[in-house]
Amino acid sequence: MSAQIIAIDAMGGDFGPRSIVQASIACLSATPSLHLALVGQPSLLEDLIAGQSAADRARLQIVPASEVIGMDERPSQALRGKPDSSMRIALELVRDGKVQACVSAGNTGALMALSRYVLKTLPGIDRPAMVAAIPTQAGYCQLLDLGANVDCSAEHLYQFAVMGSVAAQALGIPRPRVALLNIGTEDIKGNQQVKLAATLLQNARGLNYIGFVEGDGLYRGEADVVVCDGFVGNILLKSSEGLATMIGARIEAMFKSGVTARLIGALAMPLLKRLKADLAPARHNGASFLGLQGIVIKSHGSAGVQGFQSAIERALIEIQENLPQRLHGRLEDLLP
Amino acid sequence: MSAQIIAIDAMGGDFGPRSIVQASIACLSATPSLHLALVGQPSLLEDLIAGQSAADRARLQIVPASEVIGMDERPSQALRGKPDSSMRIALELVRDGKVQACVSAGNTGALMALSRYVLKTLPGIDRPAMVAAIPTQAGYCQLLDLGANVDCSAEHLYQFAVMGSVAAQALGIPRPRVALLNIGTEDIKGNQQVKLAATLLQNARGLNYIGFVEGDGLYRGEADVVVCDGFVGNILLKSSEGLATMIGARIEAMFKSGVTARLIGALAMPLLKRLKADLAPARHNGASFLGLQGIVIKSHGSAGVQGFQSAIERALIEIQENLPQRLHGRLEDLLP
Repeated sequence: MSAQIIAIDAMGGDFGPRSIVQASIACLSATPSLHLALVGQPSLLEDLIAGQSAADRARLQIVPASEVIGMDERPSQALRGKPDSSMRIALELVRDGKVQACVSAGNTGALMALSRYVLKTLPGIDRPAMVAAIPTQAGYCQLLDLGANVDCSAEHLYQFAVMGSVAAQALGIPRPRVALLNIGTEDIKGNQQVKLAATLLQNARGLNYIGFVEGDGLYRGEADVVVCDGFVGNILLKSSEGLATMIGARIEAMFKSGVTARLIGALAMPLLKRLKADLAPARHNGASFLGLQGIVIKSHGSAGVQGFQSAIERALIEIQENLPQRLHGRLEDLLP
Repeated sequence: MSAQIIAIDAMGGDFGPRSIVQASIACLSATPSLHLALVGQPSLLEDLIAGQSAADRARLQIVPASEVIGMDERPSQALRGKPDSSMRIALELVRDGKVQACVSAGNTGALMALSRYVLKTLPGIDRPAMVAAIPTQAGYCQLLDLGANVDCSAEHLYQFAVMGSVAAQALGIPRPRVALLNIGTEDIKGNQQVKLAATLLQNARGLNYIGFVEGDGLYRGEADVVVCDGFVGNILLKSSEGLATMIGARIEAMFKSGVTARLIGALAMPLLKRLKADLAPARHNGASFLGLQGIVIKSHGSAGVQGFQSAIERALIEIQENLPQRLHGRLEDLLP
């Protein structure tokens, strides 16, 4: 396996550079072929990597960037007002072929706007989509779009379906079942865009389109790729996170509601910890921006060290699978 | 307290008349002032209520209806093709003032179409909305619309907000916090309808509008009334049901994964049962159709006896609170 090099936006995210650098170093140690370019304020980053072994240090470079994009900043502001932000410099390294991917835990809207501006979309793609792996009773499904595109036409949904299918193949599913998220499984159900997208998908050669899936069907694992507009996807993702957190809190409270319950709770603790980790993989795994001329992975802003590591790992898979090129080839076959 | 009389569509739902009649009789026994009109095929219903005490029997009448609307039938078919369906006859009893509410576990689309046709909407309301109580970390929130209205304008969302607020008041919250469901809390976030609805709501006197809430904020209990279009609401509701079921299955599997785990699982069983019931209240409580000139409660098709009982109980509350009249008065104040 040849070497991989990934640019890390070291300044973004709710937890700041410390956990990002920590996660980066953990990945370096785990993957001997990996090189990282940490983008951010040099003195700060130098301090954080001081004390690393020379071997790790040799695969770690610091690329200076004087500005940081705040988590609440408007995308337009990030685009126009901050030419030397760590996020932008990291993306420019991808554009210039100096690295093979960019990973950031920063402001999602800004990352999407800058990615489109710096990297451009693949031919035939109007808008990049954000995709993440969602746990199901049968494994995982790739859900897209997760919030990058609020209003979507039938053509956009069709493009998302194609991109999601290719991404799922890259992640090891030979013939992914592709479905449209809808409020019923009959033909008459849904809004205009969804019904039109269904017609487009029914006629798409080489795509394993299986029809509509409902919210509960998604979690039953009825499809490998589930397509919706970014408004619906974002609401689904965040409400699922909120519900999982609420259930976790209720389980915790349940095991504290008396002496016997406490005792059972203490016994069950290791099992419950595993469950908790199991329920947060969307938060953990990072989301991929599909449809760009380059690989960009968004780590959850509050994902912490483990989450950021998973995001780097997703970038590694996409590099190995050459995802943008695969997408490009497939789009030429499938898009009208 | 004066007597209440409710029409029961005894033929709808996945479980058939037996559990509906069973739930009806349980409610009669629990509420001495309640009278019920069971609508459906007389001989079948007579058989099911045979053996009831004379006291209960006296508060139970059978209203004949020769047709049944199937769970997969199109609303248009139900509307035009079946003038003597149990669902329609039950709604006509409401229209004619012979009963004060209708409860059905039948086909949702047909129930909505027939309700609009038979009962009509309140003045100022374009479309009725479907609302249910969703559990949160702080208690419950009323979520609407849950699928009756796929495409909604800003004005529709505004009407839903007004109706949801009045419904929450009727359920005992003096000054309900009303929020719009969105993919961010900043003003710039969301689609056109949601942004426009926000402007309308900011200017609504007497409504406690608190702004946008995200999917996770809903489950944190940030609002008492959460407003969205029926596509989003249906996806949120069903994906939440699917996720809760998946978590339940994982917990079960977790406690079967070894001897120790089995032992802990046996100990924890009563706690887990409570949790399971706790997680399904949306399924249990029944959904209310708001904005009609009459009270219509939809019980989940697969809710079973307990679920149908809860739906009857919601109907009782709405009768006591005189919800359609309250809504009518409030709409006159608030709608332009």
